[in-house]
Amino acid sequence: MTEHSKVRAKSVQTKSDEPTSDVSDVPVFRRIGIITKPYADQPIKRVFQKLIKLLDQMGIDWALEQSCDNPVHQLPVTRFDRDQPDCDLIIVLGGDGTLLNAARTLSQWNIPLMGVNLGRLGFLVDILPSDLKLYLEAMLRGHYVEDRRFLLEGTLMRGETRLLHAIALNDITFKMRDPARMVEFDMFINGVLLNHQRSDGVVICTPTGSTAYALSAGGPLIAPDLPAIGIVSICPHTLSYRPIVVSAQHVIEITPKPQSRGGGVMSFDGQINHPLDVGDTLVIRRHDHDIRLIHPCNHDYYALLRTKLCWAEQTG
Amino acid sequence: MTEHSKVRAKSVQTKSDEPTSDVSDVPVFRRIGIITKPYADQPIKRVFQKLIKLLDQMGIDWALEQSCDNPVHQLPVTRFDRDQPDCDLIIVLGGDGTLLNAARTLSQWNIPLMGVNLGRLGFLVDILPSDLKLYLEAMLRGHYVEDRRFLLEGTLMRGETRLLHAIALNDITFKMRDPARMVEFDMFINGVLLNHQRSDGVVICTPTGSTAYALSAGGPLIAPDLPAIGIVSICPHTLSYRPIVVSAQHVIEITPKPQSRGGGVMSFDGQINHPLDVGDTLVIRRHDHDIRLIHPCNHDYYALLRTKLCWAEQTG
Amino acid sequence: MTEHSKVRAKSVQTKSDEPTSDVSDVPVFRRIGIITKPYADQPIKRVFQKLIKLLDQMGIDWALEQSCDNPVHQLPVTRFDRDQPDCDLIIVLGGDGTLLNAARTLSQWNIPLMGVNLGRLGFLVDILPSDLKLYLEAMLRGHYVEDRRFLLEGTLMRGETRLLHAIALNDITFKMRDPARMVEFDMFINGVLLNHQRSDGVVICTPTGSTAYALSAGGPLIAPDLPAIGIVSICPHTLSYRPIVVSAQHVIEITPKPQSRGGGVMSFDGQINHPLDVGDTLVIRRHDHDIRLIHPCNHDYYALLRTKLCWAEQTG
Amino acid sequence: MTEHSKVRAKSVQTKSDEPTSDVSDVPVFRRIGIITKPYADQPIKRVFQKLIKLLDQMGIDWALEQSCDNPVHQLPVTRFDRDQPDCDLIIVLGGDGTLLNAARTLSQWNIPLMGVNLGRLGFLVDILPSDLKLYLEAMLRGHYVEDRRFLLEGTLMRGETRLLHAIALNDITFKMRDPARMVEFDMFINGVLLNHQRSDGVVICTPTGSTAYALSAGGPLIAPDLPAIGIVSICPHTLSYRPIVVSAQHVIEITPKPQSRGGGVMSFDGQINHPLDVGDTLVIRRHDHDIRLIHPCNHDYYALLRTKLCWAEQTG
Repeated sequence: MTEHSKVRAKSVQTKSDEPTSDVSDVPVFRRIGIITKPYADQPIKRVFQKLIKLLDQMGIDWALEQSCDNPVHQLPVTRFDRDQPDCDLIIVLGGDGTLLNAARTLSQWNIPLMGVNLGRLGFLVDILPSDLKLYLEAMLRGHYVEDRRFLLEGTLMRGETRLLHAIALNDITFKMRDPARMVEFDMFINGVLLNHQRSDGVVICTPTGSTAYALSAGGPLIAPDLPAIGIVSICPHTLSYRPIVVSAQHVIEITPKPQSRGGGVMSFDGQINHPLDVGDTLVIRRHDHDIRLIHPCNHDYYALLRTKLCWAEQTG
Repeated sequence: MTEHSKVRAKSVQTKSDEPTSDVSDVPVFRRIGIITKPYADQPIKRVFQKLIKLLDQMGIDWALEQSCDNPVHQLPVTRFDRDQPDCDLIIVLGGDGTLLNAARTLSQWNIPLMGVNLGRLGFLVDILPSDLKLYLEAMLRGHYVEDRRFLLEGTLMRGETRLLHAIALNDITFKMRDPARMVEFDMFINGVLLNHQRSDGVVICTPTGSTAYALSAGGPLIAPDLPAIGIVSICPHTLSYRPIVVSAQHVIEITPKPQSRGGGVMSFDGQINHPLDVGDTLVIRRHDHDIRLIHPCNHDYYALLRTKLCWAEQTG
Repeated sequence: MTEHSKVRAKSVQTKSDEPTSDVSDVPVFRRIGIITKPYADQPIKRVFQKLIKLLDQMGIDWALEQSCDNPVHQLPVTRFDRDQPDCDLIIVLGGDGTLLNAARTLSQWNIPLMGVNLGRLGFLVDILPSDLKLYLEAMLRGHYVEDRRFLLEGTLMRGETRLLHAIALNDITFKMRDPARMVEFDMFINGVLLNHQRSDGVVICTPTGSTAYALSAGGPLIAPDLPAIGIVSICPHTLSYRPIVVSAQHVIEITPKPQSRGGGVMSFDGQINHPLDVGDTLVIRRHDHDIRLIHPCNHDYYALLRTKLCWAEQTG
Repeated sequence: MTEHSKVRAKSVQTKSDEPTSDVSDVPVFRRIGIITKPYADQPIKRVFQKLIKLLDQMGIDWALEQSCDNPVHQLPVTRFDRDQPDCDLIIVLGGDGTLLNAARTLSQWNIPLMGVNLGRLGFLVDILPSDLKLYLEAMLRGHYVEDRRFLLEGTLMRGETRLLHAIALNDITFKMRDPARMVEFDMFINGVLLNHQRSDGVVICTPTGSTAYALSAGGPLIAPDLPAIGIVSICPHTLSYRPIVVSAQHVIEITPKPQSRGGGVMSFDGQINHPLDVGDTLVIRRHDHDIRLIHPCNHDYYALLRTKLCWAEQTG
């Protein structure tokens, strides 16, 4: 747990006073996979064109990544057979949603992800298209900071049968199926009862997800380098519930009660959904693999928070 | 606004020094309608038997109220044809949910409601079965306080067409249909934009409903005699949303935006549900008729709050 | 309660098709009092010069208002003896704090206030100096909306002795004197116990104050035309406390308990402070006089809310 | 970080099937220090008498602990000169406040603490006097769970001069000195700006303190085995502030700004207070020594939470 949860500045120093071996002139990434969001529109295509032009100028191989859906059909696609993504960096063009999807798909391959933001200001995809030229070359030459983020995995058990297994970078939620009803369930941490609750549901989030839905539900921010999980109830019926932050080494279980008429729905990053019925148990734990995000060297998580959360706003 | 929003002590004074005209010996209610919750179980039947025995002893007519569903089928039912409930008091046996249902059904007849609590401690049905004998006779003889509560009415408009019209005692909500998605909508107050929001939805509540779902969503308590409406967003995407309390004389409109994929659902007291699609407008205003709750003379709203909200708990 | 709590559009119509009696050409305000914030700096002096030049051009009398402290000493001051402010409009140059001070001082004279904002964006002083020329002439000719706001008055009683009496436009607070201690006190509404609490204190606010300190303490917004008072505890020791909104017709009492070692401090708009000891009672009620704010005709309270509260921010 | 943050069940097994060497019959603690709260009243004296009677029966040495103030003057005191507490267990009779004080005083000696609760239900002192006989003997024989809690240390720097250094088990707060004013300050995490804020102050808490003042200020619960620090603003002026939870390995700095008229006060567990002026920096980091709490084997932190937070209350 020591190494992987730290934001490490990995920038290879440009030793400009040592002309003979300027390491930074050699790209450290040689083969780039590119992922775009599902419904690519004109702005995405423009950024895509700009990106591959820059890569071509640097003499770097690239390919549309086949393990995700890529919609830029009109463009040449370098295909290569493989069992795993044949690249040492993935560039994601899209919003945080596109990166969430890519992160889940690619987590086992240990390939770093770089996000170019085509949505609103993103926490995960933090490079503006207008800054692409500015940052891309430096980053490909090793001037970047790496930011490891852990994921959650959720397993749906019915008795001894494993019905579903999926992972999430932001959060796993359990919510009522029928918007007009509550769910009623027990939560356990490492087998010990946390509480019995009636609510609209609960969000189990990573530090990455603490700035997403969990925040809307009233949860705290969790610094990205803290190996912790946030548990945030949604509209709890009892006034005194409060969000709780626990160690990422713990296992969380959710078991709906018979009173939950209509049952509930579990959701991974809001993108994969599945019913959770009375008698089932949803088991949530830290996933074995982390993802690796890379950012420009001037990346500042707290500055991003201030901008996104209006902390800069000095209301009078 | 003066009369209807006040908790008025209507207890007819027992003028014990005037033996000739002891008003309190004459029941002020002569004909009682009884409503029970839909699935009556043994405890309800026992309380029902106890109630009708007490009424018979006082020589007071009663009938199972036909305008609501009453499940106590094995019992004699005094029927009488009518256009409106033929009674001057309705006694509700059940929980707050039973009373909500009765209140909506009967609001136009201006008949007072008395609640006997067969659920958990209720805000609306506040007489415990064990106190029935203690309070019933006194209340029927005029020793009670009356507590008027206003209702909301919601009209669903599609262009000029009125698709649905319903009323609510607690709240009208607009929520996402799909639990994994947000809704995006505009809200207007008297035709002026309040805000554009992305959230799980919004609760529009009466003071009565301010202790129900709106409270779970983070809303404030609103004193029952204040003619005000609470507007409480559910998991709003923007951090700085806050609940707002506005005059009950205002008209509130909700219009979903095209971005709300999957549409939304509106709900009246969590009991009547209907889809709300892009292009529709939900118009909410104060209903013309109030309901009248009657309570024992020692009724204390703030004491009820303290008990229900754990205010009595002096944590260390 | 009908008239005074409504935002009324009082704009005298410019009947441009009736050349004979163009009412709007005649200023409806003839004698202006000017108030600036206590420590006037260069920007204030510049706006002051600009203002009096505009007034002189319109032939309108003005004077530095003597009932408040005015620091623009180098400027000519038109003095006139009087028992009450001899003007039909007060223009406040400063921030919300300057206006709060003016409102308390002048509330009994029923003179409208117009605020020119020299602080950060203000809720009460809403005209930007750069818009002064744009709005001033029209407003002085009657094109404005009037916005009545009620005030609170607080009376400190020790037994039968009235120790202090003061008024507040935003809020009256009761807080611990020693920042490291809590206060412990009872609150009553119209003589009925609301609750017993241990906390850092409590904010009793008007709708006007609901966007100020009460909001920081977690209170709801209260629309300015609702005759209601917000009661918001500050860091309450019991988790289940919630803000409550009650009718402005009610009387609120605060009585510190012996356990409040170190005692407490009451504060009016954060500007007038006084100790409140065990045995004292602070009695808070609506003040007899309202203040009248005037705004340009395009004044939009909710737009101001959206701007101030970052509601316009569409975080992704 | 591995060992010290875990709640370890250290209960020596009673091997009842091995009659020859029943380890549990031998007390594992031989010399007990006793600490009571400063103003000992009759109930404390009674529990004290009960405690020393039990210890005498077990033949265990005890002494009133001299490093803290002990008020039970009428009782025999076994004194012994020493540089450090000459005992292998400290028993605290009092409330959480008494234990906080003892924990700070004794943290460097690595001696376990056992709390007997003489206040309201405590999070830290969790043995009821009525359970003393039940648990004491077993615990002294090794049947207990140990629960390590980390502390914070705060250093007040004025330029290069260290003005004050103190430790806290619950929290270090920085608040306004004058209850009617805000403080304005910058916060840094490991030298990087977190934010600039205007507020009533901020609470920096351990997991232990997350159930205390930080919770009143709106902070999340932090599980006691998570090496994390909570940062919770008190009545922040900007609506979008949210509590943040960061790694306990980080260093937090607070620097008041010149706008904080009247300055601020820092406080350690609410028990040690000191001014913090403009130009000073308060540096907060994890303290080198943890404290060791011991509990009966059936200790259940979440059950304690449920009881204290009213989670058991199933409001209807």
